[in-house]
Amino acid sequence: MTMTRFPDWRRPEFDERGMTRWNWMCQHHALLELGEGSDIGAFTYINARHGVEVGRNAQVGSHCSIYSESTIDGKTGRVVIEEDACLGSHCVVMPGVRIGRGAVVGACSFVNRDVPDGAVALGVPARVVRADDG
Amino acid sequence: MTMTRFPDWRRPEFDERGMTRWNWMCQHHALLELGEGSDIGAFTYINARHGVEVGRNAQVGSHCSIYSESTIDGKTGRVVIEEDACLGSHCVVMPGVRIGRGAVVGACSFVNRDVPDGAVALGVPARVVRADDG
Amino acid sequence: MTMTRFPDWRRPEFDERGMTRWNWMCQHHALLELGEGSDIGAFTYINARHGVEVGRNAQVGSHCSIYSESTIDGKTGRVVIEEDACLGSHCVVMPGVRIGRGAVVGACSFVNRDVPDGAVALGVPARVVRADDG
Repeated sequence: MTMTRFPDWRRPEFDERGMTRWNWMCQHHALLELGEGSDIGAFTYINARHGVEVGRNAQVGSHCSIYSESTIDGKTGRVVIEEDACLGSHCVVMPGVRIGRGAVVGACSFVNRDVPDGAVALGVPARVVRADDG
Repeated sequence: MTMTRFPDWRRPEFDERGMTRWNWMCQHHALLELGEGSDIGAFTYINARHGVEVGRNAQVGSHCSIYSESTIDGKTGRVVIEEDACLGSHCVVMPGVRIGRGAVVGACSFVNRDVPDGAVALGVPARVVRADDG
Repeated sequence: MTMTRFPDWRRPEFDERGMTRWNWMCQHHALLELGEGSDIGAFTYINARHGVEVGRNAQVGSHCSIYSESTIDGKTGRVVIEEDACLGSHCVVMPGVRIGRGAVVGACSFVNRDVPDGAVALGVPARVVRADDG
């Protein structure tokens, strides 16, 4: 288990608009689970209506969109970003997706299917470019 | 005509920075026309200096940029997003573009020309990948 | 030397969250150098921990991310965007990158290496598509 980057990590508070003091926001934040040491970037938007889980020490870059509900195509489903996973800036994660433990998603990716543990994925839509070499 | 998703829909108010309570913003909002039931995502930016129209029940995802003016290349022109059109997250729409009725633009697209009614378009720059099969 | 677009240009103020009144933000803004007439778009995020310099009359579009530090891959380095350079909307600029005088970076680009003076670059990752024809 990796050490957390934030020894005094605490779950952020959300104002009446769902905004945190770090300038990322979440709608339906009662359904957002945040692991200790997890880090969400500025201007990231999370829709947790159907559940979103961000694991311990996971990192989500700035300007990401994490949707457990997509009103455009009618999809819904819990999103899970496992422990130690990293998402680069400007990623979009669609409903029902699981991003595995320690996986890395490159910046500017559109993630509409699962990413295995330890894999590296990127692109629009995201493809695995390197499997876990464990 | 589709039913609106928001029976109590009302035009949002803009603060002195052009921000709405939904955390999307518009500069020159006096020149922004919003149809009933239209839905704009968080962290979307609209520059309405030369006019922007978003039709009834149209949906614009989070983190989009809609420019009726681009100071980088000096282009200007009214942007029209017709009734029931949908733009995925992270789209950029350039000056003078019309997105047709019921058209769908995939996430992370750069839209610098018109999208016909009912078509599906995506990419950087966006290309039509499916015409209206009416 | 080009004339500035903003005869009354002044460095913006940053609130306790690093936000400006134009709705772009900067962490470690004491280490952000902004040239006269420079223009930063809404919802742009700058991490200036290791220094960021934006030259005179340079333009940065909306929804850009400029990182002098990337906690995902551990890279750090001063970012320099030279005089008169332009970055389109939704660009990501990685640590240590220099974008040359008058260079243009297309929207939705991921910039992880230097862009020469006067060049046009775009893509994920960004490639030079036109050298300076000066």
